[in-house]
Amino acid sequence: MPIEIEFFEEDKKLVVGDPASVTSLRKAFYGENEGAAVFLRPEEALYMLDVRNGRCLDENGREVTFNKIASHFGDAPRLMTRYYAFKDWRDRGLVIRPVDEATHYNRNPTHKYPSPGFDVPKYNAVARFYPDDNYAIIDDDIVGERMYTEHWFGQFGTYKADKHGRYNKLDIYEALFLLRHGSITIENANERQLIEAAKMNNSFFEPIYNVYEDWRMRGFVVKTGFKFGTHFRIYFPGAAPSRTTDDWIHSKHVLHVFPRTMELLTSELSRAIRVAHSVKKTFILAIPGEEIMKDVKPDYLLYHRKKDGIETPEDGMPKYLMLSLNEDEKISGAYLASAIDAAKNVGLSLMLAMVDRETSITYYRVRRIELKDSKYEYYEIDWKQP
Amino acid sequence: MPIEIEFFEEDKKLVVGDPASVTSLRKAFYGENEGAAVFLRPEEALYMLDVRNGRCLDENGREVTFNKIASHFGDAPRLMTRYYAFKDWRDRGLVIRPVDEATHYNRNPTHKYPSPGFDVPKYNAVARFYPDDNYAIIDDDIVGERMYTEHWFGQFGTYKADKHGRYNKLDIYEALFLLRHGSITIENANERQLIEAAKMNNSFFEPIYNVYEDWRMRGFVVKTGFKFGTHFRIYFPGAAPSRTTDDWIHSKHVLHVFPRTMELLTSELSRAIRVAHSVKKTFILAIPGEEIMKDVKPDYLLYHRKKDGIETPEDGMPKYLMLSLNEDEKISGAYLASAIDAAKNVGLSLMLAMVDRETSITYYRVRRIELKDSKYEYYEIDWKQP
Repeated sequence: MPIEIEFFEEDKKLVVGDPASVTSLRKAFYGENEGAAVFLRPEEALYMLDVRNGRCLDENGREVTFNKIASHFGDAPRLMTRYYAFKDWRDRGLVIRPVDEATHYNRNPTHKYPSPGFDVPKYNAVARFYPDDNYAIIDDDIVGERMYTEHWFGQFGTYKADKHGRYNKLDIYEALFLLRHGSITIENANERQLIEAAKMNNSFFEPIYNVYEDWRMRGFVVKTGFKFGTHFRIYFPGAAPSRTTDDWIHSKHVLHVFPRTMELLTSELSRAIRVAHSVKKTFILAIPGEEIMKDVKPDYLLYHRKKDGIETPEDGMPKYLMLSLNEDEKISGAYLASAIDAAKNVGLSLMLAMVDRETSITYYRVRRIELKDSKYEYYEIDWKQP
Repeated sequence: MPIEIEFFEEDKKLVVGDPASVTSLRKAFYGENEGAAVFLRPEEALYMLDVRNGRCLDENGREVTFNKIASHFGDAPRLMTRYYAFKDWRDRGLVIRPVDEATHYNRNPTHKYPSPGFDVPKYNAVARFYPDDNYAIIDDDIVGERMYTEHWFGQFGTYKADKHGRYNKLDIYEALFLLRHGSITIENANERQLIEAAKMNNSFFEPIYNVYEDWRMRGFVVKTGFKFGTHFRIYFPGAAPSRTTDDWIHSKHVLHVFPRTMELLTSELSRAIRVAHSVKKTFILAIPGEEIMKDVKPDYLLYHRKKDGIETPEDGMPKYLMLSLNEDEKISGAYLASAIDAAKNVGLSLMLAMVDRETSITYYRVRRIELKDSKYEYYEIDWKQP
């Protein structure tokens, strides 16, 4: 029998009283129990109308449509984005509950990365900086080749053909890093001038550089991620440049920087993750900066599957907090960082549910990285089919 | 024998006089002939030093290094970006010449798209707009399903399961389009309010909408390109929604909008093209807007291969104009449009050479699309291994 909901406009309550319906709703963990009735949240009521053939009537027996219900909850921000994320999780046969029910769990695994540190060598090389192009080029082929071979600074010779050509080209991140740590001199620019040149094209250069420096100082090799759609690709400590295909594929991780003060469309963040996924790299997100946002609350508490069925509030624990995001919505790094913190505070990982214009959902799971002595927090973000 | 270049500082001339060297340079189409000598352009001289074991001496017999040569041409903007693009083309055994040598060619093929036009049906549906979420939802399932089935407006039911659920969700582009053409009404917003809501998140909403409308009015179905990293995906006139895999794959084209007034990093443009390429879609770029930039000159005239060898100024015609772009460089839509026009004016296609931080080059070929009655110009951009 289709579920009948009664809507009490004054209290904005959505109530199901029919005993059979109450039993069925309780069994599937919908709503709040109030005596013999179940009070539904707006998303839950919308779901009944949308896919359960449910009906909603007001106190006078007049039909209340989907849009009518929603119009009474205009104070619930982003209701439709949240609704379609809710719907998708329910459509998968999984339980989804209000985030306020979260207590504390210990289901927030972190991924530990090595962090041996790095002593910046003194190369005493002299480079010339090209401010239009953001390269610093070293005439001296002896030291230029050594920097490249020993620690993979710059590109000696030609990309994938380092014997072809005789100069080392440092990129702007490498040039600033080596200059700042006293490893090289630059004949025509100082630190400030390097930074100013880089900021002409990218006002977020400094936070991106800070992330570069952080990983380099932990011992990682950090090169451009251009081919993978990200700011950087990284190699684990000990990596060396090589032209062989075997070594080449040892870069399994890409690193992208989303400064706290930056705003971007959800679709832009997703695009970067997609390229990384299509080339089978682990996507690492850095959210550097100081800005704190305190009031970001993820949308739902997600129960997931277990070996022999599904997890429920009765039988199991939630696995994620869900933050729903609309394709056309702009978010800041600080906003995302705060949502991740909220999940961490209840001992869960954050699940991003990106709702596109066709209300199709793409899920990205956010897992914290442990990188000893690091200045920032980093996250692996992977595409997930729940 | 290594090539010896003499540098005349006052005139900034790079001259090769040795008869054997002159013969070899002329044979490979380097430089300008001046009597018995060859005058090299800076990139050509740098190339000799870099990969041909060349030397450069000044009038007093002192060695002039790579950086020293470059430092004398500081008035040549983006010299290193242009140099590494030049080098790569030369490294492939192909001829590359100054753009000023271009005359007029007829090697600018356009790709003709159908344009049957579209009569916007009058649906008389009533939708409710959700400004936080950018959807307009239709309660009436009869008309809602019809709009979806007939012309693929909105998402009826559930994505890839249109029998599951009973509402049609129009995205913001569809909602504005149908409202503007008198096809639907919106109970809680007018055109201006729709636009204002969309612009809260995306200040470029209007030019992007204009492109949406242009393709819809030509008869194409235009849906979100979220899964493909672009603003839209398009289906050719006559397409209808379907859940079968066979029909699903009929979207072979994605459409991305780069307004003339927008600025973005080359790496961001490349990222969007990469996602499309990884999912085997044809990437279409729209550059809407009025702003005209007149002074953008591509960098080089590119000769390519032919059946039995390579094209040269003696034996064949150039195929492309090359615009070199640095990974970390910011460009505007107007800048790119102007470079494309410059190529069109000499009857060639534009080749983008994107130079990354490791001086590795990614090539994208730009080909014009012919779309009858359209308001804008569109381009197919495809990844090219020269």
